[in-house]
Amino acid sequence: MQPDLSDSIETPQLFLDLPRLRANCQRMRSHLAGHAVALRPHVKTAKSVEVTRIALGADTGPITVSTLKEAEHFFSRGYRDILYAVGIVPGKLQRAAALKRAGCEIKLVLDTAVAAAALADFCAREDIVLPALVEIDTDGHRAGVAPDSQLLLDIGAVLGPAGLLGGVMTHAGNSYNSQSTADIQAWARREREGIVLAAERLRAAGHAVPVVSVGSTPTALMGTSFAGVTEVRAGVYMFFDLVMAGLGVCAVDDIALSVATTVIGHQDEKGWVITDGGWMALSRDRGTQKQAVDQGYGLVCDASGKVLPGIVVVDANQEHGVIAARDGGALSPTDFPVGRVLRILPNHACATGAQHRGYLVLDGDHTQHWERINGW
Amino acid sequence: MQPDLSDSIETPQLFLDLPRLRANCQRMRSHLAGHAVALRPHVKTAKSVEVTRIALGADTGPITVSTLKEAEHFFSRGYRDILYAVGIVPGKLQRAAALKRAGCEIKLVLDTAVAAAALADFCAREDIVLPALVEIDTDGHRAGVAPDSQLLLDIGAVLGPAGLLGGVMTHAGNSYNSQSTADIQAWARREREGIVLAAERLRAAGHAVPVVSVGSTPTALMGTSFAGVTEVRAGVYMFFDLVMAGLGVCAVDDIALSVATTVIGHQDEKGWVITDGGWMALSRDRGTQKQAVDQGYGLVCDASGKVLPGIVVVDANQEHGVIAARDGGALSPTDFPVGRVLRILPNHACATGAQHRGYLVLDGDHTQHWERINGW
Repeated sequence: MQPDLSDSIETPQLFLDLPRLRANCQRMRSHLAGHAVALRPHVKTAKSVEVTRIALGADTGPITVSTLKEAEHFFSRGYRDILYAVGIVPGKLQRAAALKRAGCEIKLVLDTAVAAAALADFCAREDIVLPALVEIDTDGHRAGVAPDSQLLLDIGAVLGPAGLLGGVMTHAGNSYNSQSTADIQAWARREREGIVLAAERLRAAGHAVPVVSVGSTPTALMGTSFAGVTEVRAGVYMFFDLVMAGLGVCAVDDIALSVATTVIGHQDEKGWVITDGGWMALSRDRGTQKQAVDQGYGLVCDASGKVLPGIVVVDANQEHGVIAARDGGALSPTDFPVGRVLRILPNHACATGAQHRGYLVLDGDHTQHWERINGW
Repeated sequence: MQPDLSDSIETPQLFLDLPRLRANCQRMRSHLAGHAVALRPHVKTAKSVEVTRIALGADTGPITVSTLKEAEHFFSRGYRDILYAVGIVPGKLQRAAALKRAGCEIKLVLDTAVAAAALADFCAREDIVLPALVEIDTDGHRAGVAPDSQLLLDIGAVLGPAGLLGGVMTHAGNSYNSQSTADIQAWARREREGIVLAAERLRAAGHAVPVVSVGSTPTALMGTSFAGVTEVRAGVYMFFDLVMAGLGVCAVDDIALSVATTVIGHQDEKGWVITDGGWMALSRDRGTQKQAVDQGYGLVCDASGKVLPGIVVVDANQEHGVIAARDGGALSPTDFPVGRVLRILPNHACATGAQHRGYLVLDGDHTQHWERINGW
């Protein structure tokens, strides 16, 4: 049961449904436990210590971060096993080294011979061990070296003898573009097979490869084998969003994140409802644009969180949202009076979360505030 | 001359070119002075007291805000004449009243009979005067009542006798979709004629209409007549961006805002350069997508701010940018080594700015930090 929030609430504001968050996190933990593979949740979606504790089901544990600021914040809150999953550059090594010297077991990521050599030089010069995972490209999506490439072995030859080869990692980001569960499972197979091949080739070259890390919410939840994989990274599953619902990875009713907005006016002739929830509150993300159901800038719910079928945010300016029926039918001002609070489910939880500094956490009749840490 | 920033800079980071900011602000002030119309800059783009001082050419003056948080922040820094330009709802009246009681001459905006009645009731009950401008729809873009509507007179009949009719305002947001300078000038004419008609109809009904307010950066800069208009609101002109350059309102070299990023890797076979500047730093805004030249997620410059023609951010993940040639040609890793700093010009300055907490302000060899205030 959701509290029915009246116009006493400040809007726009980011709401987090605690029972849904708990259920989503339990689902991932149960799924991976069934495959006997470890979870290293990615904190980039929630950027919240409280959410991460629920994801881990423990006060602390291994995490993945997208910025050194996240690493520093979580380390200051008792997290010691941290993978910084964006390619390291020489200019960021001193910040990573400071974490290591303070007691953080930070692991880096790289995918070029230049970065590997720079890391080896830095560690020798500074007398420090900053292990790195080699990023592997298993889907042609973004970064990483091919699992069958000579470059992989070249990087291994730099890192291995220096004691800096932490393992291998990959991210099947292209799974977000899947058209079916079978598609997602195919990406999951490709992700696993690619990373295992990369690990085997490095081992055949004489290197220890302790960590074999994969991760994306679709492949983590839909994958049927994790043989040879040591850990799974994922983040958006904690909240889910309309993109994930469009992929069939979750139901719309699993989405734990929403933006509360207030009706501020109407355009009667067009059947539009105008709200104070623009792109500043929702983000500019249009991740469902290429999916079978385009949710505009978000799907509209009533103040209790119940979906109003077929009603979406069709346009967004900075502090104005335009709500209309997806089929072009007019909305009645009587149904959406000035002052009515609505909740918008996001296309992309990472992007919508990033527009806010914290969460109003809803747990039945009880609410509390949790902070996010943004920036770099 | 721009400083040539080496890899000593922390990235991603938001840069603000002070000479360009000053020139852009001077251009608007000179243009409006020539038309003898007042400027009420919109602080929603910069969200910075320091930038607003340059826009006004004075320590304080009239401003437009998009959130009550901006109003509270600027009032605390000495700004007393503030227009809150998003439709007011009953739930926000207490915050506005607190500003008024503290000495702020805050003006509100509304466009429904319900909001007008709620405001009149509130002011009578609280014994306070919170004047409101009636928002006029002059372009079919978003909010506002038609200038020739009965609703306008109905709202006037509620606000006028209560001493709450501050005037009329409009925003020609559709000017952003113009295809030519002539198009922009047509929107400017329509904006001016609509708002003047609305003011005249209210005056004919016996109401005083002291404020007649228009504004959008394209119509403000391209408008050729402001007869009957008392003030102009605009914000993005301070920084400009690629959308404005695509409209011909500014040159690319006028853009004062950029995001510094570092090369973190390559995809040699695809000719891609991977950076640490993803959508978290650039925003998800794709405002140039429908223009003649699609700038992707931004146009790439070298570390000194010089445009690298035809090189754009073609894709953006949360903390990864993918840079490529617009014509599909491959970029050479030799030209973009790991660690190289690049600067990205934004599609939409409001959206990109919102991803950051402050500016690294560049003024020749001198740099300083200015804060932004985000949130609500």
